Amino acid sequence: MTTMKALVYHGPAGLAWEERPKPTIREATDAIVRITTTTICGTDLHIRQGDVPTIVDGRILGHEGVGIIEEVGASVVNVHQGDKVLISLITSCGRCRFCRQRMFSHCLTGGWRLGNSIDGTQAEYVRIPYADTGLYRLPPDANDEAAVMLSCVFPTGLECGVLTGEVKPGDIVAIVGDGPVGLATLLMARLYSPAKVVVIGHNDSRLEMARTLGATATLNSSAGGAVEHVMALTDGAGVDVAIEAVGVPATFALCQAIIAPGGRIANVGVHAKPVELHLEKLWASNITLTTRLVGAGTTPMLLKMVLDRRLAPEQLVSHRFKLSDILAAYDMFANATRERALKVVLRN
Amino acid sequence: MTTMKALVYHGPAGLAWEERPKPTIREATDAIVRITTTTICGTDLHIRQGDVPTIVDGRILGHEGVGIIEEVGASVVNVHQGDKVLISLITSCGRCRFCRQRMFSHCLTGGWRLGNSIDGTQAEYVRIPYADTGLYRLPPDANDEAAVMLSCVFPTGLECGVLTGEVKPGDIVAIVGDGPVGLATLLMARLYSPAKVVVIGHNDSRLEMARTLGATATLNSSAGGAVEHVMALTDGAGVDVAIEAVGVPATFALCQAIIAPGGRIANVGVHAKPVELHLEKLWASNITLTTRLVGAGTTPMLLKMVLDRRLAPEQLVSHRFKLSDILAAYDMFANATRERALKVVLRN
Amino acid sequence: MTTMKALVYHGPAGLAWEERPKPTIREATDAIVRITTTTICGTDLHIRQGDVPTIVDGRILGHEGVGIIEEVGASVVNVHQGDKVLISLITSCGRCRFCRQRMFSHCLTGGWRLGNSIDGTQAEYVRIPYADTGLYRLPPDANDEAAVMLSCVFPTGLECGVLTGEVKPGDIVAIVGDGPVGLATLLMARLYSPAKVVVIGHNDSRLEMARTLGATATLNSSAGGAVEHVMALTDGAGVDVAIEAVGVPATFALCQAIIAPGGRIANVGVHAKPVELHLEKLWASNITLTTRLVGAGTTPMLLKMVLDRRLAPEQLVSHRFKLSDILAAYDMFANATRERALKVVLRN
Amino acid sequence: MTTMKALVYHGPAGLAWEERPKPTIREATDAIVRITTTTICGTDLHIRQGDVPTIVDGRILGHEGVGIIEEVGASVVNVHQGDKVLISLITSCGRCRFCRQRMFSHCLTGGWRLGNSIDGTQAEYVRIPYADTGLYRLPPDANDEAAVMLSCVFPTGLECGVLTGEVKPGDIVAIVGDGPVGLATLLMARLYSPAKVVVIGHNDSRLEMARTLGATATLNSSAGGAVEHVMALTDGAGVDVAIEAVGVPATFALCQAIIAPGGRIANVGVHAKPVELHLEKLWASNITLTTRLVGAGTTPMLLKMVLDRRLAPEQLVSHRFKLSDILAAYDMFANATRERALKVVLRN
Repeated sequence: MTTMKALVYHGPAGLAWEERPKPTIREATDAIVRITTTTICGTDLHIRQGDVPTIVDGRILGHEGVGIIEEVGASVVNVHQGDKVLISLITSCGRCRFCRQRMFSHCLTGGWRLGNSIDGTQAEYVRIPYADTGLYRLPPDANDEAAVMLSCVFPTGLECGVLTGEVKPGDIVAIVGDGPVGLATLLMARLYSPAKVVVIGHNDSRLEMARTLGATATLNSSAGGAVEHVMALTDGAGVDVAIEAVGVPATFALCQAIIAPGGRIANVGVHAKPVELHLEKLWASNITLTTRLVGAGTTPMLLKMVLDRRLAPEQLVSHRFKLSDILAAYDMFANATRERALKVVLRN
Repeated sequence: MTTMKALVYHGPAGLAWEERPKPTIREATDAIVRITTTTICGTDLHIRQGDVPTIVDGRILGHEGVGIIEEVGASVVNVHQGDKVLISLITSCGRCRFCRQRMFSHCLTGGWRLGNSIDGTQAEYVRIPYADTGLYRLPPDANDEAAVMLSCVFPTGLECGVLTGEVKPGDIVAIVGDGPVGLATLLMARLYSPAKVVVIGHNDSRLEMARTLGATATLNSSAGGAVEHVMALTDGAGVDVAIEAVGVPATFALCQAIIAPGGRIANVGVHAKPVELHLEKLWASNITLTTRLVGAGTTPMLLKMVLDRRLAPEQLVSHRFKLSDILAAYDMFANATRERALKVVLRN
Repeated sequence: MTTMKALVYHGPAGLAWEERPKPTIREATDAIVRITTTTICGTDLHIRQGDVPTIVDGRILGHEGVGIIEEVGASVVNVHQGDKVLISLITSCGRCRFCRQRMFSHCLTGGWRLGNSIDGTQAEYVRIPYADTGLYRLPPDANDEAAVMLSCVFPTGLECGVLTGEVKPGDIVAIVGDGPVGLATLLMARLYSPAKVVVIGHNDSRLEMARTLGATATLNSSAGGAVEHVMALTDGAGVDVAIEAVGVPATFALCQAIIAPGGRIANVGVHAKPVELHLEKLWASNITLTTRLVGAGTTPMLLKMVLDRRLAPEQLVSHRFKLSDILAAYDMFANATRERALKVVLRN
Repeated sequence: MTTMKALVYHGPAGLAWEERPKPTIREATDAIVRITTTTICGTDLHIRQGDVPTIVDGRILGHEGVGIIEEVGASVVNVHQGDKVLISLITSCGRCRFCRQRMFSHCLTGGWRLGNSIDGTQAEYVRIPYADTGLYRLPPDANDEAAVMLSCVFPTGLECGVLTGEVKPGDIVAIVGDGPVGLATLLMARLYSPAKVVVIGHNDSRLEMARTLGATATLNSSAGGAVEHVMALTDGAGVDVAIEAVGVPATFALCQAIIAPGGRIANVGVHAKPVELHLEKLWASNITLTTRLVGAGTTPMLLKMVLDRRLAPEQLVSHRFKLSDILAAYDMFANATRERALKVVLRN
């Protein structure tokens, strides 16, 4: 078989599920993976809407996946043909100055490439560069739905939100955003035993899910008054860590309004516009504000947690489709609020 | 003697050098200091212009000084009558939750109070609360001009700029601002052996001073092209640390434009307006942005350096006045560029 | 009433429950506390045996307690007469160089003083120096038995073991020692979601308690083979963090034998003898070894956890006595293994 | 040419300069380097004496070098045939769990391999595994003698001593050991502007060199009294950082005796025997003790410093030999004290 089916971006013409050549090994460090499970990221919806101008017509989308290795290049040592593997969204060479500094997100020939600058995982097959660092072996009986959550959403919540935000025992944490990344961030924050985690969103069913997952309070900000509510919850002190997991000016503004002196604002959201930063108030507040592209260095630890059954990321899966029905899955996911959708899994 | 002369703020009516009651011990932790040397901070100019609305009519200005202790309260143990002392701009109780966290800048009954919420050091005498933590003993022969630079400007450059910016050996550092704090930051950055320190300003004589003090390059941004110059100096990579030491939107924008992925922007400037933060570019750049009010916890270390003659902060002193001529000193300092002024010292 | 009953150390002559003058305010920063609850530390047993030569004849023992404030000195602001308070084992002035560095354990006029260089808490009344930093207000209905565990044992486990050991999510942690501090360390380690916590001791009932409190494995080292068991549990890799909570050469040797490359050994135990350090093996293992006297800076956070019912340290209380029966309590506690004792609480 | 000359270890029979097959590419990630400059490490002397039992008969020694690339494997991208290169002592794959954690020293298929588990650099040619991470390109006119100091001695001093010891401005640092690594550590410590650096050794000419290189004090410990001298130099407080750069029990004991509360002991020396650790004194001193095998992650930064002429490591070169005279060089270096030798350079 030399062709396969894949979800292809065609600019304003939209997405298509179409025939494409099956990928082949190009470098000795590549692997070809047959996809068994993939999912759709919020970023994929932005791409569909044309918000990510770097994506070219003809690109196969998707940066999350689980599959079986079909073939490995000559120099691959960590994984082998027939292995069940988890695909990391991050490509990293291991030998450039950024990789040597452990900033895999900015690898000079890697970073976020799958479904972006090279063809991605929403297809029957995908070529994975630097397979030794981009794939993780799974036991044959591993839960695909749990594993695929570790391609992007959980490392993102942990690294960009919780670790960069330096959540620690006793902290009061606000997570602004009730989407899949926000909820994954909630589960990751709980690893550090904060005193309170407040999740702020505008989707009541997701906020209910947040409470199920351990949020000590939730706020629907549609009704207004979020700042006042958070300040009341914190006896007027503000929160120690505010994690922005939406990517629009209003949610970033909220983070600034509720942060305590000495606090940290960890930006996780993908922003399309500049925001206003209130330095006239914050210059003397000892604030730390961080931006971060996930490097996925925490994936092995998270995978160990999943395999030990101490973490159940499959809790975030709300819908399941056949891979060949991915266009319908995109349509459903684009109406996530109405459909009460969190993560949608596609099985091949 | 029960009265003294002091520099008093009278709102729109301006400043006056006038008779005031000599301060007295109010709490057992107070000390009264006879000022021998003080100086004017850029912030004092802002106050004179009415830019700091919290300053009330009648307030004695000034938060920097060296003097001789006249009297101490009953519970003061670290300093004694007759001691020559350095006055810290920061008041800290040592027992509130912020002091216990080593965030002295936000002490619940302290922080920046002198010349702000209580009477300050531009006077013949000043009352210092929590004298045990707000005063540092000096040897009788200590250089007053060197010491008074440690009240505010050097701890600010070190803590808010260099330590928070995490300058380290081999780094490329940009300091945006060529005023006294910018130049103090330069000397402080050099303690960590950065590869390059670029000082960016718009005052050629100060930039020349910066080169004398060890800047590896300087840029006059009045001519435009600062971003291009910095990028050229860094082979297109940007700087590892950008320190904002001005406090206006344009200089903050410059910091954003030149920061390398993984870099740190340390804000030192006092801002009066919001700024635009380009999250649409920076969200994926792994940037850390910090704001900081100085806590002055580094003053003992800096004082040791001065006494050991390994640091000569008096290099920044450009003008000297008698304390009773302080109104003339303010007028001169308000035209710092024309007057080629850096720090102006007032002796009593 | 000007006398009280207290537990007094008389060197080789042993301890006595005897009449002593009731303490009075000496410094403006003092408070006098009427003890309602106290407990006996393992260190107190060492003192009774004469192992702590700095303790002088006539010293009232005890550094843990809960009580009601009888009187405060003139400059005390954080606590007031009639307040129910938790007593910290650490005395700290808040103004010496160690306190300013947040190393309260080495305060130049403080540190561990209660029941050591000044009279302690195993008495009807105690004088607390620097009451503003040495006492924490409790709500009237706070659980005394939970609170008294925060005087020493829980901050010790958290600070000296878990924080210094840098326990983090996914780590494999060994706690060597199954006494009260070892078990408190276990509860504190769990705040950071380690993958595995192995408790190693020689008391089966305490090891059973460890499993109840969340240890993923326990080992009775009396039978030998502890190194082999731990290496088997870790697939030959060794542990990421080894916490020594006993204080004898054999347990310290065990920590060295099981530590993974890059790992941390956090010493909590009080040692009376030198130990052998196997630098001939460890010089290339990237080990970090720490010693630490508790500073109790984490007590406010722990207290918040207890009041929020997210931590139940009273789980460690195994026996209760009247304060006036404290000699019997010492005798029982000296046979902790036979008596299946953990913490013994004394109520007044 | 298919043979070359090399310095070969023959166990008790000693070293020989003899004919060996020229190395060839075995893996696609290899490079073959023609050595132009190499040097002898103190560790090589230990090997010659038979102190390193893992070294097998027939091994070519040496882990430091500069040379010209003869040939690269198919997948090498960072360096090319004809490049002048610096050889790192550390081999690292970039894709194992240790490399991903930035602990290159413990790479599962790397670490210190050259002149240890594979043939080394004291030869006309050497095979370098993982050439992309093990070689650094040099400009053709780079100073070979400066560069070869970056193979091992300077990264060791910086990483194992200064960074792990967390030297910072204002610190008092003791470096115990006046050999090449001790003196390199001194230069590296000065990058952080410590208040004082005391070098302690037993070789007056090296101690004189230490003063030339910036030591603020030196002590010849042969005469005894080193502890008393250091305590006097520090007003009885002890040193903030003690760096052990010898590797014998006596020097490690000295570090323990002079360390201040809260201080750090960074072990750099290679130890052949256990040492006594005085936990009976140090348990309450808040000490951090570290061991470290160099990972050489700082080499690129150091190389930039050398190329910018801000660091002149060639200052440590005391003797020069032709590579073919390496046996004579070993004999001279074995009597380093008598010969006043520091680093001996061998040119091919």
